[in-house]
Amino acid sequence: MQKPLILVVNDDGIFSKGIRALVEVVSEFGEVVVIAPDKPQSGMGHAITLNQPLRLNEDTIFSNLQSYTCTGTPVDCVKLGIYEVLKRKPDLLVSGINHGSNVSTNVLYSGTMSAAVEGAMENIPSIGFSLCDFDSDANFEASQMVVRQVVRAILNNDFPDHICLNVNVPKLKKEELKGVKIVKQANAFWEDRFDKRVDQFGKTYYWLSGDFKDEGQAKDSDVYALECGFASIVPTHFDLTSHKDIEAIKKWEI
Amino acid sequence: MQKPLILVVNDDGIFSKGIRALVEVVSEFGEVVVIAPDKPQSGMGHAITLNQPLRLNEDTIFSNLQSYTCTGTPVDCVKLGIYEVLKRKPDLLVSGINHGSNVSTNVLYSGTMSAAVEGAMENIPSIGFSLCDFDSDANFEASQMVVRQVVRAILNNDFPDHICLNVNVPKLKKEELKGVKIVKQANAFWEDRFDKRVDQFGKTYYWLSGDFKDEGQAKDSDVYALECGFASIVPTHFDLTSHKDIEAIKKWEI
Repeated sequence: MQKPLILVVNDDGIFSKGIRALVEVVSEFGEVVVIAPDKPQSGMGHAITLNQPLRLNEDTIFSNLQSYTCTGTPVDCVKLGIYEVLKRKPDLLVSGINHGSNVSTNVLYSGTMSAAVEGAMENIPSIGFSLCDFDSDANFEASQMVVRQVVRAILNNDFPDHICLNVNVPKLKKEELKGVKIVKQANAFWEDRFDKRVDQFGKTYYWLSGDFKDEGQAKDSDVYALECGFASIVPTHFDLTSHKDIEAIKKWEI
Repeated sequence: MQKPLILVVNDDGIFSKGIRALVEVVSEFGEVVVIAPDKPQSGMGHAITLNQPLRLNEDTIFSNLQSYTCTGTPVDCVKLGIYEVLKRKPDLLVSGINHGSNVSTNVLYSGTMSAAVEGAMENIPSIGFSLCDFDSDANFEASQMVVRQVVRAILNNDFPDHICLNVNVPKLKKEELKGVKIVKQANAFWEDRFDKRVDQFGKTYYWLSGDFKDEGQAKDSDVYALECGFASIVPTHFDLTSHKDIEAIKKWEI
């Protein structure tokens, strides 16, 4: 049997520790090609680059495998990967390992997860991996164990059409991790705050900040699973239709 | 009864014809505040600005109402609007009118729609309006009629919690428009293509391009409604959980 072709992308950029941790594990399963942003792209969501051209450069950071940097977003990396570098769909797309949680509604802001969602749109089995630790020198040992388990399971099972997996790993030692839970996206949200400052010319600028409000979650949610010491896996789609509201709105007189 | 407070945002930037067309109509219904990007932000999806500070500047392009430009994305505009400018949630958030269609999976790439989705996350009745015409001098008369009908209906009915509406208007004259249809997101997608060019230094660059594959759509989809001459309205949520796949994946041995 031919080795699967695995496309690796991320949003923290090619120099992050997380993508090295991911490449190390998925290389056990197949032929790996890396396309990562040349600078951090956190919070880029599903952005694509329309108003500027893109550059794609070969990189030698990973020995023994093809790797490229891209001047665009994580979703640009996926598109360039499929349509320009590989010239075909990979057998598996993995994104991450993100430095920081992508639970709940963070899936919408996350470049890591948007790259996986783009893979789902292309009907490629796709997974976004995130570690709940923003430290650039975070310990990815537990995450690597989860990556290995999840990739093995995907290769041994039928992957549903047009979805991806949102995998989050708690900040725990490998031996403390309790297992994995298949769950849903929690109903948490950001209460934003702007840190207002004044520059050297007396002009105002703002840093986006805030508190993530995630208390009182359902037991079948990702936030709850992580609190209990499990890695969370949310099957993730891209149908934004709120089907339950169609009939009620049809009754409005528009 | 107090006039509703309406926040207007867009992704084409404050100088676009579409936002002027939108402001003109919603001003009939309430007090309007505008916060728009200072440059085009199409395709920015749900991106937020984390690695750079944001600037917010008062603008005088609209007479008799408060307006601001923001250096960030459409979603940044919503966040600045709620948490810094208004210091409260508006009664209604409208985004657009976009120059170009945001049907089907374009909802994920669209800055216009992502701003409306951000409003839904804040539980503000929110609507993204798009005209299926990319021309910067497009005719917004039919769109303005639809905006008026939809805003009136929202003010006269209970808006469901935590959703927004994705409204697309076909490129037709006002008198040719057949009405509105409440529908679902079509299963269409982009077959991408990169236009590879060489710059003056002999280095390669790429423009993202492609074909939107939207043939053979279901009769209750947005693409079909527009083809038949109707404006389409898709109730849009932000639960990306693919609930139908949870049980099957639980059976995998992970």
